[in-house]
Amino acid sequence: MIIGFIGFGKVSRNLSRLIKSDDISFATSFEGRSPKDVSENIEVLDTFRQVAEKSDILISANSPKSALDVAKKYGKYAKGIYLDLNNISPDTTCEIANYASRFVDGAIIGKIDSDKPVLYISGKYADDLLFLDEFIKTRKISNKIGDAAILKMLRSTYTKTLSAVLIESSEIAKDNGLEKEFFEALSLTEGDEFKDKAISRITNTLNNSKRKSEELEEIIDYFDGEDLTMVKAALEKLNR
Amino acid sequence: MIIGFIGFGKVSRNLSRLIKSDDISFATSFEGRSPKDVSENIEVLDTFRQVAEKSDILISANSPKSALDVAKKYGKYAKGIYLDLNNISPDTTCEIANYASRFVDGAIIGKIDSDKPVLYISGKYADDLLFLDEFIKTRKISNKIGDAAILKMLRSTYTKTLSAVLIESSEIAKDNGLEKEFFEALSLTEGDEFKDKAISRITNTLNNSKRKSEELEEIIDYFDGEDLTMVKAALEKLNR
Repeated sequence: MIIGFIGFGKVSRNLSRLIKSDDISFATSFEGRSPKDVSENIEVLDTFRQVAEKSDILISANSPKSALDVAKKYGKYAKGIYLDLNNISPDTTCEIANYASRFVDGAIIGKIDSDKPVLYISGKYADDLLFLDEFIKTRKISNKIGDAAILKMLRSTYTKTLSAVLIESSEIAKDNGLEKEFFEALSLTEGDEFKDKAISRITNTLNNSKRKSEELEEIIDYFDGEDLTMVKAALEKLNR
Repeated sequence: MIIGFIGFGKVSRNLSRLIKSDDISFATSFEGRSPKDVSENIEVLDTFRQVAEKSDILISANSPKSALDVAKKYGKYAKGIYLDLNNISPDTTCEIANYASRFVDGAIIGKIDSDKPVLYISGKYADDLLFLDEFIKTRKISNKIGDAAILKMLRSTYTKTLSAVLIESSEIAKDNGLEKEFFEALSLTEGDEFKDKAISRITNTLNNSKRKSEELEEIIDYFDGEDLTMVKAALEKLNR
């Protein structure tokens, strides 16, 4: 079996490392780009079209911006499963699904280079990918394309509003001269890692506030009709 | 040395259990109430006034409502340290401090009946209580009465807004038929305990929404002048 990658960044590289089987080989292409070093078990082809045609499973893992374009160009050449792993909205996912006959919606949750990332998949062809569970924990959510993308968005809803809460409460603690004690006292009940994790979330959010704001806007847009009091407050907070 | 308790509930009971020393004995009273069973090392006196007069350290641990009244009635009889452990606001703490000559502001963070609660103390007489560190982790914050109460309020600011975030995001997950997956996916990055802790927070907040709303109002009132976008949103959320 051949697994092909369109886009050979962190996700694809780690997947090709995790999936170790004599029956599986990999293919990718650096068409139009400067080639990167890849390990021996990955065949580098001249074009993405060749990758699509040759693969039993074609994985699109490039960038949210190019995900739709990649599907439009190469989806039609995919003879097997087309698995999209880009960080895209549920709506874009459903649009992309039109360009490949056997489309699977996928989301990797947890750091891909950590011990235990999980691959969530949805769509009726998702069953054909459950064998991957041998290499990376793989969970089928449902037959509904978009569910994996929604799950990713739900996770992001929580983490982004949480970051806004952390920014606000630590700021008040700082203004009251009790920042150190604030993190220490919370670590008692939230776990030893609380402080480091909280500071990394705060820094990451403040350093990327424009992008985080846009992502919050997407969430508000997509979940329109839900009670989004906290999400809207988080957006307001970030826009200050 | 005698440690006296006004109020003999969970906190006092656990403190008398944690503080094990041949040099320390305990006293309390059930004046005007039906007496409870107490262990041998606790002397039960007829009146709270006697407890105050006899104690080297008098601990007020009853209820937020009665804390001020207790201080007014018995603070003047305390010959040694008066340690207030009630869950009261920084303002009330400073008011109470007027009724005892050697007042210490205290807050226990973490469950008192768990492995590692921490006693935070503030005020210039706090040093006299640092010996307690031998029995329960004890940390002096500053010489400023009110700082222990502020720390407690900061912790509560975080946990209460976090609960509102959990309520909102899990509700959206439920509406999208992905509640189970939502908790599972978050546990991957937030730790194995995430789900149980989150559900207990959500339930606890919804079952006590009136009291939680009042506490959020107190926070908004006390931290007036700070950016309270998330806290105010949490209050709005709970009031729905």
